[in-house]
Amino acid sequence: MDYYEESLKMHRLHQGKLEVMSKIQLKNKEDLSTAYTPGVAQPCVEIMADPDDAYKYSIKANTVAVISDGSAVLGMGNIGGLASLPVMEGKAILFKEFGGIDAFPICLDTQNAEEIIETVKNIAPTFGGINLEDISAPRCFKIEKRLREELDIPVFHDDQHGTAVVVSAAAINAFKLIGKEFKDISVVIAGAGAAGNAIVKMFVNLGIKDIIICDSKGIISTDRLSELSEDKIELLELTNKGNLKGSLSDAMKGRDLFIGVSGPDIVTDGMVRSMAKDPVVFAMSNPEPEIKPLRALGAGAKVMGTGRSDFPNQINNVLVFPGIFKGALRAKAKHITEEMKVAAAYALASLVEPEELNTEYVIPNVFHPGVADTIADAVAKTWEDENM
Amino acid sequence: MDYYEESLKMHRLHQGKLEVMSKIQLKNKEDLSTAYTPGVAQPCVEIMADPDDAYKYSIKANTVAVISDGSAVLGMGNIGGLASLPVMEGKAILFKEFGGIDAFPICLDTQNAEEIIETVKNIAPTFGGINLEDISAPRCFKIEKRLREELDIPVFHDDQHGTAVVVSAAAINAFKLIGKEFKDISVVIAGAGAAGNAIVKMFVNLGIKDIIICDSKGIISTDRLSELSEDKIELLELTNKGNLKGSLSDAMKGRDLFIGVSGPDIVTDGMVRSMAKDPVVFAMSNPEPEIKPLRALGAGAKVMGTGRSDFPNQINNVLVFPGIFKGALRAKAKHITEEMKVAAAYALASLVEPEELNTEYVIPNVFHPGVADTIADAVAKTWEDENM
Repeated sequence: MDYYEESLKMHRLHQGKLEVMSKIQLKNKEDLSTAYTPGVAQPCVEIMADPDDAYKYSIKANTVAVISDGSAVLGMGNIGGLASLPVMEGKAILFKEFGGIDAFPICLDTQNAEEIIETVKNIAPTFGGINLEDISAPRCFKIEKRLREELDIPVFHDDQHGTAVVVSAAAINAFKLIGKEFKDISVVIAGAGAAGNAIVKMFVNLGIKDIIICDSKGIISTDRLSELSEDKIELLELTNKGNLKGSLSDAMKGRDLFIGVSGPDIVTDGMVRSMAKDPVVFAMSNPEPEIKPLRALGAGAKVMGTGRSDFPNQINNVLVFPGIFKGALRAKAKHITEEMKVAAAYALASLVEPEELNTEYVIPNVFHPGVADTIADAVAKTWEDENM
Repeated sequence: MDYYEESLKMHRLHQGKLEVMSKIQLKNKEDLSTAYTPGVAQPCVEIMADPDDAYKYSIKANTVAVISDGSAVLGMGNIGGLASLPVMEGKAILFKEFGGIDAFPICLDTQNAEEIIETVKNIAPTFGGINLEDISAPRCFKIEKRLREELDIPVFHDDQHGTAVVVSAAAINAFKLIGKEFKDISVVIAGAGAAGNAIVKMFVNLGIKDIIICDSKGIISTDRLSELSEDKIELLELTNKGNLKGSLSDAMKGRDLFIGVSGPDIVTDGMVRSMAKDPVVFAMSNPEPEIKPLRALGAGAKVMGTGRSDFPNQINNVLVFPGIFKGALRAKAKHITEEMKVAAAYALASLVEPEELNTEYVIPNVFHPGVADTIADAVAKTWEDENM
């Protein structure tokens, strides 16, 4: 099936994928007077008196903005806000289908970080949460940090945290199967962009102690200090305790877990062979992984995962963000905390029953029933335990 | 029926009035691969190559933003962006019900004109049109003017132009019934805010020559020049050729048409009695008109209209904005021009058949079938005649 041609046909036929519908009927003057003027003044008055009532009387309760400047879209790179609209519409329908959340795409006509921050703050009243999407590093770090500080609704950059949570869930199950504990494993991550950054921080929170991260120039190490950006210096503080230097190939030797969030075909059979016994390889570059699954398995990978739907162990963010937002909205959480992300990872991992767990099934399928609700329950409970 | 209590119940039950739905099914991997990655890359690539293709492959084709800072909401005044959300949701469902347009409320957390302009420009890629709503004068003039200049999608401040078009349609039919031509009639307008401003300009375009406009201090006249704001000086250039001075009461003497877009109960029986023979009174302050219909009729008004649904001749914007946007979107118009507004007014007026026209029926009911399509046809044709 030619997905590109089919997709073009589908998008042309429907003129996009979303529709804004009324939840109520407008068939006569009484309907108009209740839904609109004069009756509508009453919920307005209530919200003026207590802004929290917006969650009672308006769509804020269940509505998320999917915000992108189109600077780092899927495999396409910087295509700009307008051209990213079909992707953001797609994200919105995933929110609805998997999480029951009303999501609306806001594609931006600016790629200036300060302008993005101001714009998102200015349009925030309508929304109960902000999903940042496909915004390139390092701007995405500053934008998310500032919005988290300055808004009182959850702000979540899915390319960072959604990826970190789903990788963590897969790693939890892979090492449960292999019989190694997180405190004892060593990890190498290829790619120090949005996803790599968040994975490092999440792995530290999961109790993993030995992490090496590489960018396109090799291992992030103290000898590169003068040329490292601020966010990479921050990564250095969390990784490479042994001060290893060199290439990705050097970094992979003896490691238990490889995480690829970089680009296609950068890992060779030999590099996999150099890893520890029973290595785990999650090569998530899309659509072409860092190493093809059959090659990695041939070179001794015990568990192999990719971002693709045509191989076992698809490590896909859609398993995560609908449930995270569903739980955060239900709990009226002001933020999505590290603890909520850890809870989400364990909740997702728990959906693979012990008797089902095997090398080709460490992560549930995207259509696995109950994924979003299981994560939402864990996420809401974590916020409530911390804040109530 | 207590609309306020009913409205509160309805809003609580549904948590707002809008829902974002998918137009396509997402039931298996093939659906995901077509609607989302990898297939979705193809419409993105097409839009990158030709931005106009956003109208072919995305929701831009049929999506309007309803934008408010909550500074002048219905009868409530400045309630802020968040508290205005139920009203803007209401506007969005009117767009859908009457025009088949997908409209989404964007409630702003700023009332600074420059910030509003920047924010709307920054979020414009998603939308095929911008409906500004309940933004107070005089900021609304600057905001609309700048956005019209700087965006290439239609920008329409409904409180100005929607009101002007629907009043014009009612006036067209009222004077057809009475048998006076626009070039011969004299008009007095009470209220020099958003609506009054747009009505003056539209009436000039309809061929009305003798217009007086009053603000809360009385007739806008040259002797007040030093204290008049820029927008009122502009009005003065279009009105009061005889340089009349004084109060609203002075202004009403001998006039054929009174337009009220100000506040409740400012017009007395005597003031109506002082008007020309067979005067027309459109008292549109909501919910309390400038003079109650029965008083105005008792004082000799030949045709009486209000903004209320419980009296004949309801002069309501909902008759106009769905059709205007429907036509503009269909024609992919870059702006809504004065000519398009005039065409809309005559199209709306034409829906009252000559044999039905009477003093209690100069404007169609909001549920009259075909209103939006009739206006849309006229609006689209006018743009196409001017630009193709």
